[in-house]
Amino acid sequence: MSDNLVISIDAMGGDNSPRVVIEGLAVAAKKNPDVRFLLFGDEAKVLPILNTYPSLKKVCEIRHCNEVVRNDDKPSQVIRNRNTSMYMAIDAVRKGEAKAIVSAGNTGALMAISKLTLKTIQKIHRPAIVSIMPHQNGKYVMLDLGANTECDALNLAEFALMGNILAKHALGLEHPRVALLNIGAEEMKGKEEIRHAAQIIKNSHMDINFIGYVEPHDIPNGVADVIVADGFTGNIALKSIEGTARLILRLIKNSVKKSFLAKIGLPFMLGVGLSLKKTMDPRLYNGAMFVGLNGLSVKSHGGTDALGYSVAVDNALKLVRQDFVSTIKNELENVDLDLLSQEIIYDSY
Amino acid sequence: MSDNLVISIDAMGGDNSPRVVIEGLAVAAKKNPDVRFLLFGDEAKVLPILNTYPSLKKVCEIRHCNEVVRNDDKPSQVIRNRNTSMYMAIDAVRKGEAKAIVSAGNTGALMAISKLTLKTIQKIHRPAIVSIMPHQNGKYVMLDLGANTECDALNLAEFALMGNILAKHALGLEHPRVALLNIGAEEMKGKEEIRHAAQIIKNSHMDINFIGYVEPHDIPNGVADVIVADGFTGNIALKSIEGTARLILRLIKNSVKKSFLAKIGLPFMLGVGLSLKKTMDPRLYNGAMFVGLNGLSVKSHGGTDALGYSVAVDNALKLVRQDFVSTIKNELENVDLDLLSQEIIYDSY
Repeated sequence: MSDNLVISIDAMGGDNSPRVVIEGLAVAAKKNPDVRFLLFGDEAKVLPILNTYPSLKKVCEIRHCNEVVRNDDKPSQVIRNRNTSMYMAIDAVRKGEAKAIVSAGNTGALMAISKLTLKTIQKIHRPAIVSIMPHQNGKYVMLDLGANTECDALNLAEFALMGNILAKHALGLEHPRVALLNIGAEEMKGKEEIRHAAQIIKNSHMDINFIGYVEPHDIPNGVADVIVADGFTGNIALKSIEGTARLILRLIKNSVKKSFLAKIGLPFMLGVGLSLKKTMDPRLYNGAMFVGLNGLSVKSHGGTDALGYSVAVDNALKLVRQDFVSTIKNELENVDLDLLSQEIIYDSY
Repeated sequence: MSDNLVISIDAMGGDNSPRVVIEGLAVAAKKNPDVRFLLFGDEAKVLPILNTYPSLKKVCEIRHCNEVVRNDDKPSQVIRNRNTSMYMAIDAVRKGEAKAIVSAGNTGALMAISKLTLKTIQKIHRPAIVSIMPHQNGKYVMLDLGANTECDALNLAEFALMGNILAKHALGLEHPRVALLNIGAEEMKGKEEIRHAAQIIKNSHMDINFIGYVEPHDIPNGVADVIVADGFTGNIALKSIEGTARLILRLIKNSVKKSFLAKIGLPFMLGVGLSLKKTMDPRLYNGAMFVGLNGLSVKSHGGTDALGYSVAVDNALKLVRQDFVSTIKNELENVDLDLLSQEIIYDSY
């Protein structure tokens, strides 16, 4: 297990762990025969399930841990216990035994241990949480989704830099269109830190295709490939999108249930349902990536199934294969965002 | 035209004015035979259309104005021109000739002139923009939707107070459940000003059924009747909701268009479509209310139709009939939010 394609797995995180985790790994392993997994968890629970997937078992190594991080554990507690499956799985990345860690456990805990253990990349001030999301004819990445409630202009500019690289690696785009999330398209709109961030990005001579501001209702039209926001705003937008999507689909379902005619028409609509699912299925967008650290942490939804979990593993693999962390470091060698941010703040007086 | 139920109308605001405005008034007048309208606009354009609605004409008085506020006019310009239909319509509320003004024109201009002319209610620091929105089994109000990009705890507490009264008057609820929009339900989550606002509301002994924080994805479940946020966050949530609703409906439409089978099934689905429309039709939620001023301004969507415009007029009427502005003033006589806010800020040291 010394090659580059080793992924560390917190086998005990998530609602139906370790079963769903192992089922998900089986899906991922079939698609990625060159990958190996380090499984951290209770061997007595992991091994019997793993035994039912003989070809997966061949590419897995179990590392027994007695303890687990619970959903209601506080980040301040979990960073003190080095015996949990989550801690040990992340620590394997720090030690160089794996290139990325995937966990379906407690988000706050995963971020806290990842920051403590992997440390933030030099010149990056704050790690961010990124997800891949659907628009009407493709996908975009959005960050930060909740790691940083308050952000200054420099943080936002760093997110733009990381989001740009992530969109290249995860979406395969050559020149991703990068935008700042705002409440208007005009230059003077929104908060001061957003306007400053726009100036930093423009003046940085980073190789970024910066297209200015985007408003949330334009995101589904596919106007940008990278949407940058502070963690509070990003989280509000993400949860508003999720809630509305669920509301409409539920309204349709309830209405079909109540209507005799609709039940007759339903079989004709299967194609429409499938096509909608193909675009909107939340499992296809599972796997939020923590970026800005010396190593990659990927958070799977706790309630996902095998397909969803395999997508989270896929996200980790895409970034590892293209050496995402090194690309960020290289990019930062050519640009001093800190200095730029100072210049712009002085300019505004 | 001296009774209480006079509404001032900016006949020239909106994409298809004054035609849509007058068509909308005809719908509203039929439902509200006790209401009279003051129409501000170009008489040469307004009168010919009004002549085609004889019963509406009986309850209208036209006040000729030469000028209009354009969509790209800056707020700083429009407040200097007292001859526009928008300015004169708002000024009629200041003069006591009408109790509320409805305009489908430029939002920024409407807020700027409303603030300048009607002035903020004493003890309220900032007016807010409120809309009525749909959840799965009813409606809720959300504020601020964009009037104030940055808000402190006191502003948020004032929004809670006004939103509470608005939900009583516009939704007919006795004890609306009031919540602060946040990225987590736990007490320690989110921004400092949100946590402080929670304390002010709890300690104020206002007659508010305050239920704490709500996250955006829970709003569609109908967990709260009043959602309070700063104008930046509220605007981001609103536009995220609008964008997602449009995306899903468009995905369904496009998918039906492409499928022969779906076209056969479509007639059976009419009921489902109608039921969805009944809940989600944006025209039914038209008419954002500017609250916190000595008088009521209602902003209709610029691109709406007669039905949508009539809903905006309905919103104005509901609040006027129940003397919304006086209720806020009375409530503020019993509570000193300013003082409370100071106490809580000192407490936190």
